[in-house]
Amino acid sequence: MARITYLTAIDFGPGEIASLAPACAELGITRPLLVSDRGLAATGLLDRVQPLMPAGARFLDTPPNPTEAAVHAALALYRGDGCDGIVALGGGSPIDLAKGVALLATHDGPLEGYAAILGGIARIGPVAPVIAIPTTAGTGAEVGRAALLSLDDGRKLGFISPHLIPRRAICDPELTLGLPAGLTAATGLDALSHCIETYLSPRLNPPAEAIGLDGAGRIWASLETAVASPRDLPARTELMMGALEGGLAFQKGLGAIHSLSHALGSLGDLKLHHGTLNALLLPPVLRFNAPAAGEKLGRLAAAMGLAAATDLAEAIAGLNRRLGLPAGLAALGVTPDRLDLVIERALADHSHATNPREASASDYRRLLAEAM
Amino acid sequence: MARITYLTAIDFGPGEIASLAPACAELGITRPLLVSDRGLAATGLLDRVQPLMPAGARFLDTPPNPTEAAVHAALALYRGDGCDGIVALGGGSPIDLAKGVALLATHDGPLEGYAAILGGIARIGPVAPVIAIPTTAGTGAEVGRAALLSLDDGRKLGFISPHLIPRRAICDPELTLGLPAGLTAATGLDALSHCIETYLSPRLNPPAEAIGLDGAGRIWASLETAVASPRDLPARTELMMGALEGGLAFQKGLGAIHSLSHALGSLGDLKLHHGTLNALLLPPVLRFNAPAAGEKLGRLAAAMGLAAATDLAEAIAGLNRRLGLPAGLAALGVTPDRLDLVIERALADHSHATNPREASASDYRRLLAEAM
Repeated sequence: MARITYLTAIDFGPGEIASLAPACAELGITRPLLVSDRGLAATGLLDRVQPLMPAGARFLDTPPNPTEAAVHAALALYRGDGCDGIVALGGGSPIDLAKGVALLATHDGPLEGYAAILGGIARIGPVAPVIAIPTTAGTGAEVGRAALLSLDDGRKLGFISPHLIPRRAICDPELTLGLPAGLTAATGLDALSHCIETYLSPRLNPPAEAIGLDGAGRIWASLETAVASPRDLPARTELMMGALEGGLAFQKGLGAIHSLSHALGSLGDLKLHHGTLNALLLPPVLRFNAPAAGEKLGRLAAAMGLAAATDLAEAIAGLNRRLGLPAGLAALGVTPDRLDLVIERALADHSHATNPREASASDYRRLLAEAM
Repeated sequence: MARITYLTAIDFGPGEIASLAPACAELGITRPLLVSDRGLAATGLLDRVQPLMPAGARFLDTPPNPTEAAVHAALALYRGDGCDGIVALGGGSPIDLAKGVALLATHDGPLEGYAAILGGIARIGPVAPVIAIPTTAGTGAEVGRAALLSLDDGRKLGFISPHLIPRRAICDPELTLGLPAGLTAATGLDALSHCIETYLSPRLNPPAEAIGLDGAGRIWASLETAVASPRDLPARTELMMGALEGGLAFQKGLGAIHSLSHALGSLGDLKLHHGTLNALLLPPVLRFNAPAAGEKLGRLAAAMGLAAATDLAEAIAGLNRRLGLPAGLAALGVTPDRLDLVIERALADHSHATNPREASASDYRRLLAEAM
């Protein structure tokens, strides 16, 4: 009937970044590769975190949607410097990149052979230890068993295994206090999409549903405050807990929001932000799924503190507008000629099968048209 | 602020017992020790399960509250027969006993050195693989990181480590279809006490609270049906999910219900049933904790489908009466002269510190008097 798994140790709370040194010691990491990006380095956060860990190497060239080439570049650094573990600091991109490096540090052959859609799950064994420190709230990648990586040929594929779950997540909301309003909004909607899409997906996993509902409530209650008052620590803490809960829940399976956003994210030249895509896809996919959701939409609304009869798609579209998110995919540069490829890739995505209502190519075309 | 962990793979659903053979193969168990008890053997369940696993040894002398002596007897069988893993089939007692055997199969020295209260957590490393198959709903021991074992000197101590979590839990509600009404009621109240006590305990762990609330709702909605109609598979399935959720949640910490029931359970000559004790302790401890619970009691009542203003202690006392549970501790043979020892042990129990309201010796005396 169902396989249910929960996996990893999370240190959560303001100031928890102080647990980085003991975490390295516990996991036997004496020479870490720090994986982050240049945007984060510019905020000074990197300089704050690096003194808390043993000396090692650092890789800052993480692309917005991490690529096979970047994995190999970071891996060369990891090997060349004799590293024995990875500390990933940032949003989902550095964390996913770190998972790719941890995988290839202990597994031979081309990356493609480990992609979920190509049967790679069974071929992934223990990987190098990863400590994940999210600086957004967020992707949930710090507790997720998936890494999304774009191969050299352009396909954005999911790599999935319990072994890819970071051995430790350090979730310190103080690290998100400086996050700009736009990124706070887009990453917050990403987290909300995890909670909602997990709750609605059809597999049996009541603990995941309970966690997702709780997370949706926390995000809905705190996101606008965090966007309006970026240094509001209680709102940042609630938002980070909601994002963490999204990540703890989404092992149950996601759906059409993510099959489409993965496919759109694979259009490398556009550098589309994953959370922004999910924000724009939430309303049309919620409308599409409503006939298959039954009484779940009412329970979801209640968990978010809304009347059970609320039109959630409209409520989220309204939130997107209030938060100043882009009006649609067209505003992000997506042109109609790209949609055939997007639909083809969405149909092949690992999240496609767990949407509550089966989506055909023409359904995807209609959903994309609505989101344009 | 908080450490949050979720850990293990659970195969859940009617018929999932069929996954026992593949589970043994996946975990490298070629010669299992089957740990169960004679009561279960008499039901025929053992004969149904044993053909699904590789040949090995079996240990059926599990005491109602497992003892150090029984751990050593089972360990001798495990070693003598060249076993390489353990399949625990039954309620909490065989599962806890199996954890004790798995621990001493890979760790030297007296059992006492690994007790949580004596700092044993840090001394417990990887143990022999355990597959836990609950036949009650239930203790949650199939996903719990604790084993409660009575030492030769009479103390009932908790042994706690993530390594003690069974490597696989197989939760098949069909195995509970034959469970008598009295045991269904007592074990169901045990599960309810886990959900409630976890939710009310003061540590920060929102995912555990969300799971506990969901579990409380499922147990409250299905327990009376399962007691009245023991072969009602949908009710048995809901009840087993609620019990599993109690087990997934209680890593957050329990409280005075469990510090007292552990202490009472250590009175070996009385052979007191853990779930029955928790059922009798729930109402007085809920009343004691009410001043510290704030708005949580209302949320708990709502999750159980009750009006927010419901007197939960009275509601549970009423349920106990309707289910035919014993009227109090005195009816179970507990005499006033035993209470000094019970209080002393409750104050030293690992669940004592996570009660929402600090309990003194005289508080415990008053709670026990109420429960008599």
